[in-house]
Amino acid sequence: MSATPVLQSLIAGRWIGSAAARGLHSAINGRLVAQTHAEAIDFGESLDFARRQALPALLALDFQQRAAILKALAAFLMERKETLYAISAHTGATRADSWIDIEGGIGTLYAYASMGRRELPSSNIVHEGPAQALGKAGQFMGTHVLVPKRGIAVHINAFNFPMWGMLEKFAPSFIAGMPCIVKPATATSYVAEACVRLIEASGLLPAGALQLIVGSSGDLLDRLEETDVVTFTGSADTASQLRVNPNLIRRSVPFNAEADSLNCSILAPDVLPGDPEFDLFVKEVLREMSAKAGQKCTAIRRAIVPAAQVDAVAAALRERLARIKVGDPSIEGVRMGALASKAQQADVAERLAQLAQGNELVFGERDGFAPLGEGVGDGAFFAPTLLLCRDAMRNEAVHQVEAFGPVSTLMTYGDFDEALALAAKGRGSLVGSIVTKTPALAAQAVYHAAAFHGRLLVLDRDAAGESTGHGSPLPMLKHGGPGRAGGGEELGGIRAVKHYLQRCAVQASPTMMTAITGEYVRGGKVTEDAVHPFRKHFEEIQVGDSLLTHRRTVSEADIVNFGGISGDFFYMHFDEVAAKDTQFGQRIAHGYFVLSAAAGLFVSPAPGPVLANYGLDTLRFVNPVAIGDTIQARLTCKRRIDRGNRPDQPPQGVVAWDVQVTNQRGELVASYDILTLVAKKG
Amino acid sequence: MSATPVLQSLIAGRWIGSAAARGLHSAINGRLVAQTHAEAIDFGESLDFARRQALPALLALDFQQRAAILKALAAFLMERKETLYAISAHTGATRADSWIDIEGGIGTLYAYASMGRRELPSSNIVHEGPAQALGKAGQFMGTHVLVPKRGIAVHINAFNFPMWGMLEKFAPSFIAGMPCIVKPATATSYVAEACVRLIEASGLLPAGALQLIVGSSGDLLDRLEETDVVTFTGSADTASQLRVNPNLIRRSVPFNAEADSLNCSILAPDVLPGDPEFDLFVKEVLREMSAKAGQKCTAIRRAIVPAAQVDAVAAALRERLARIKVGDPSIEGVRMGALASKAQQADVAERLAQLAQGNELVFGERDGFAPLGEGVGDGAFFAPTLLLCRDAMRNEAVHQVEAFGPVSTLMTYGDFDEALALAAKGRGSLVGSIVTKTPALAAQAVYHAAAFHGRLLVLDRDAAGESTGHGSPLPMLKHGGPGRAGGGEELGGIRAVKHYLQRCAVQASPTMMTAITGEYVRGGKVTEDAVHPFRKHFEEIQVGDSLLTHRRTVSEADIVNFGGISGDFFYMHFDEVAAKDTQFGQRIAHGYFVLSAAAGLFVSPAPGPVLANYGLDTLRFVNPVAIGDTIQARLTCKRRIDRGNRPDQPPQGVVAWDVQVTNQRGELVASYDILTLVAKKG
Repeated sequence: MSATPVLQSLIAGRWIGSAAARGLHSAINGRLVAQTHAEAIDFGESLDFARRQALPALLALDFQQRAAILKALAAFLMERKETLYAISAHTGATRADSWIDIEGGIGTLYAYASMGRRELPSSNIVHEGPAQALGKAGQFMGTHVLVPKRGIAVHINAFNFPMWGMLEKFAPSFIAGMPCIVKPATATSYVAEACVRLIEASGLLPAGALQLIVGSSGDLLDRLEETDVVTFTGSADTASQLRVNPNLIRRSVPFNAEADSLNCSILAPDVLPGDPEFDLFVKEVLREMSAKAGQKCTAIRRAIVPAAQVDAVAAALRERLARIKVGDPSIEGVRMGALASKAQQADVAERLAQLAQGNELVFGERDGFAPLGEGVGDGAFFAPTLLLCRDAMRNEAVHQVEAFGPVSTLMTYGDFDEALALAAKGRGSLVGSIVTKTPALAAQAVYHAAAFHGRLLVLDRDAAGESTGHGSPLPMLKHGGPGRAGGGEELGGIRAVKHYLQRCAVQASPTMMTAITGEYVRGGKVTEDAVHPFRKHFEEIQVGDSLLTHRRTVSEADIVNFGGISGDFFYMHFDEVAAKDTQFGQRIAHGYFVLSAAAGLFVSPAPGPVLANYGLDTLRFVNPVAIGDTIQARLTCKRRIDRGNRPDQPPQGVVAWDVQVTNQRGELVASYDILTLVAKKG
Repeated sequence: MSATPVLQSLIAGRWIGSAAARGLHSAINGRLVAQTHAEAIDFGESLDFARRQALPALLALDFQQRAAILKALAAFLMERKETLYAISAHTGATRADSWIDIEGGIGTLYAYASMGRRELPSSNIVHEGPAQALGKAGQFMGTHVLVPKRGIAVHINAFNFPMWGMLEKFAPSFIAGMPCIVKPATATSYVAEACVRLIEASGLLPAGALQLIVGSSGDLLDRLEETDVVTFTGSADTASQLRVNPNLIRRSVPFNAEADSLNCSILAPDVLPGDPEFDLFVKEVLREMSAKAGQKCTAIRRAIVPAAQVDAVAAALRERLARIKVGDPSIEGVRMGALASKAQQADVAERLAQLAQGNELVFGERDGFAPLGEGVGDGAFFAPTLLLCRDAMRNEAVHQVEAFGPVSTLMTYGDFDEALALAAKGRGSLVGSIVTKTPALAAQAVYHAAAFHGRLLVLDRDAAGESTGHGSPLPMLKHGGPGRAGGGEELGGIRAVKHYLQRCAVQASPTMMTAITGEYVRGGKVTEDAVHPFRKHFEEIQVGDSLLTHRRTVSEADIVNFGGISGDFFYMHFDEVAAKDTQFGQRIAHGYFVLSAAAGLFVSPAPGPVLANYGLDTLRFVNPVAIGDTIQARLTCKRRIDRGNRPDQPPQGVVAWDVQVTNQRGELVASYDILTLVAKKG
């Protein structure tokens, strides 16, 4: 016993725990793997440390800097992943299961580092614009900003993916500037503890940016404040209990729940045996039953197939299920491991008994179930089990009882509307899939099923080669679903970061708005000096730096020449007769000529700090330019983003410029942003 | 008594109620105005009607069509507004107060009609893209869509703005396709009932799209399903009670709360008596105390001023408060009316007593309070009351006890950090304001205070002329705040519509994705036929219609000529010596030349259905075009929006085209969308 490690909590910068409390056992053979600690955690101290130490340290960094730390952390963990694979094996996971947890988790750090770098400013305020005038004179504007909430994120996680579950929530909350307190499910907390030990050893995070609770979360939720957030992943029942915590309710603490759900996969009526899509469906159901021994919130619990195809589907699944080797994943050829604990084993058995009532058994324990390996009798193995329900519109259990293991139910439908009605009977799921070869059926299915799902996968032969599968949440796509699935939203790209920020509407004059958002707002004061803005280095350019160019009169020759060069002889520019009948009543200059001439007005020809004009956004041709009109451009620095320096390129920053082209009457004729890369001095 | 109308509920298409239950009294003179009905409402019937009748009817329309109905409804109500003003007077409101409620409410319908028209598609699926490739081959894409939730919106509203409060929630939920069941606060339900009678008389809405509850909402919340949503406006205590309804919790029914809060206004330390901003601050506090007799969730409860200025501010406010005439608003010169009921009067008095403890009274009932008018002794008038707290960092009551009437507290600060700390002591507010003339102070204040507010107003002399004021929510800006304010979000432009839709991640091949989203996704199948896409009318154009143009070799002469015409002689195009040192190692063509030449490739010169190219989005120059390169363009219909026809313009629709310009190696050199107006056949 003395050799079995006592897991420790990381609280207020210290590792806590030496006396053993509860033993945690290998899912493979029941041997003791680790023990929780008996020492109580002072959650007041934990929160105080997060608020006083970690929060200021995180807010001393900007979004870009925190994203860069996340990237470094991902690289640090990836180099040490084998340590984690060794520990993860105790959970009953195969190498492939652990890959989802470990490299999936690290991959999520990389993904958020990259999204943060690409989509967030080099400050701590996100301008969710554009600012819009609230009055005719344009001196009172309205917009939205997102800022750090100045609170703590408490993440309560499920047992099935102890590492991915922690990192997919940590990544966006860290970028948002929130210290995190993570409470992994105790059963597999030894994996989370090992990961947090590595993170702590990296020295990359500010002290207290990530605290770890091994064991109970005690009175933590009762101590939270209005600025904090809670996320929960686990069962719908536990979600319901935690959500009504009186302190959370009184203070309106956001509570994001992601619960297991009765996810479905629909085989559309257009797919017949022999179609590639038929095999895709069978493989998908099989994979979702066996991967992680079916312990995925996203696994397919309900396989919805046309009544005409159910026998063919059942036969194909039966044949393939019989070939899956279950046992100790360290044995060559074993494809499915154990459930995470004996407690889970008992729970799945109990729920299977409920599900089985009145339904046929297509495949199960009776079909020669015998896990491979030494001591597996003390492990938490469970036979892959497939039921068949021929009356699913009238059976409630198959839509509501989840056996969180390798258990699924085939169910039949008559017409496609019935298939969609069955999907909806899950009362809200994380994910659903539709296997079809017909775009119109895919469109119909998504339009109807999207209201009941957080994510929908449409699988056909084209998508199959690159599909990441029904059960895989991805960093750029929302994870979470309505109703029974908890109603929460996680991931989904930069949306997840915004979940940990506070959105605030702002009303102000343009000059104030420019200072507040860090982005130039039209109508605000500009700075004009002797130096052309394009001759300044990144460090020298300030938001609001502006150039009003010389003017240029647009002549008939310009139109003729521009047509000759571009090849664009559109009647509005060249056909005096037809142009008379347009809304303009005369020939007008090409919009692209106006754009090109404006560049000619503000360009600074000699080599300088502006390295490239790589794009242009939101161009609008507001008024026509007629022959004889005189145009002028104003170029103003709108936004600058410092993404730090990269070893593979010269030091540079991104600068967006607001361009307004006006005519001799001061009317706006064209409006757009141009995007440039500008060299830094050093 | 028999002449006093019994208010009726509109349930399942029928007006219900004839027996009187509870009397509702004029806030001005206590006379009986209306009575609630005694008949019980069958909420099962109500929900059933909404689900079976109203929901299919709403979803038979698209976003554009529902927006058009909203516009017609706004016009219908605006013509009949005087009926509503007459009824609203019983609530104790002045004409100006009623304007906020009535015309503010109708204005919100107009605003959402306009936003819906501008920002939503002519379908029932919003593509929240762009779709992104999830694999290297680009045959597996991910994106997000928003679809109608296929449920019911229950809106529980506050007594202070019975009409605005109803319409600001109805507008976005109706556009989103949700039937609404509205339960106004009983005290002023006669206004809401009058408004719903007009709406019903208009015949503009599908039956059951708006149901009205006069009286108790009974077991309505216990009957809701996973697809439904609840919004609540009212006290923080009631919000906390309703939020934990077991049925709502079990089904994860979204519950959006907007509670009263202890909003603050900060006079920044840079503002001195004599500055225009000093007067703006005083006026704003005064207005927020007296408008609607202070019964606004957004009113200034805490006026935070530098200790050095507090005497000057108090003197100015005292002087102006003394000039406010309180009484029956039908009397000329009366600027402040009554509280909504005697119950409110008692409640405000009780809370004022709590607030007053330990604080100075700057102005109050003792200062000659005598409401004008007949019978006002039986009305619910309350004296404008201003307290002064010189120790606000240690006084909790002034930050937590809200007297929902014409009651505010002045409080003092030393340095600006203390002012921001005081603001945060509200523990989450709907709105705050900062009055300053210094952009850096505004930026500092917003960065720190935004975490605690739903909206922040920065007031200076520039913004003053058009400012809509501290207390006015606007349709395009978020309304709602964190923590004590309930944590909800309403309004905020099209965000509010999205609150009533379900977001779903979608993964599919590009061809499937195109069918699902209704927007062409690159990599998906295109349709090429003999007719140039620009020669088709709006009705004939399908998403995916595509043209691959002829090619063009870019020569040195093109660069020279384009420089001559545009005036753009940037060294990358013209300086052989300097161009050698760039990343490209040689002279390259102007990006705007590539853009112009692409237009020349795909333009169809003769007059045709394409009426205008009014803009361009997301242009990226992906690869350089060198001398001798040969370019080609592919133009594909990406999106089409039918906004219906308007009497003031020829029938037309919006078509966005995806443009990809490639070189002789098939590499993408430029990528963008162009926006066109295309004529309809009829």
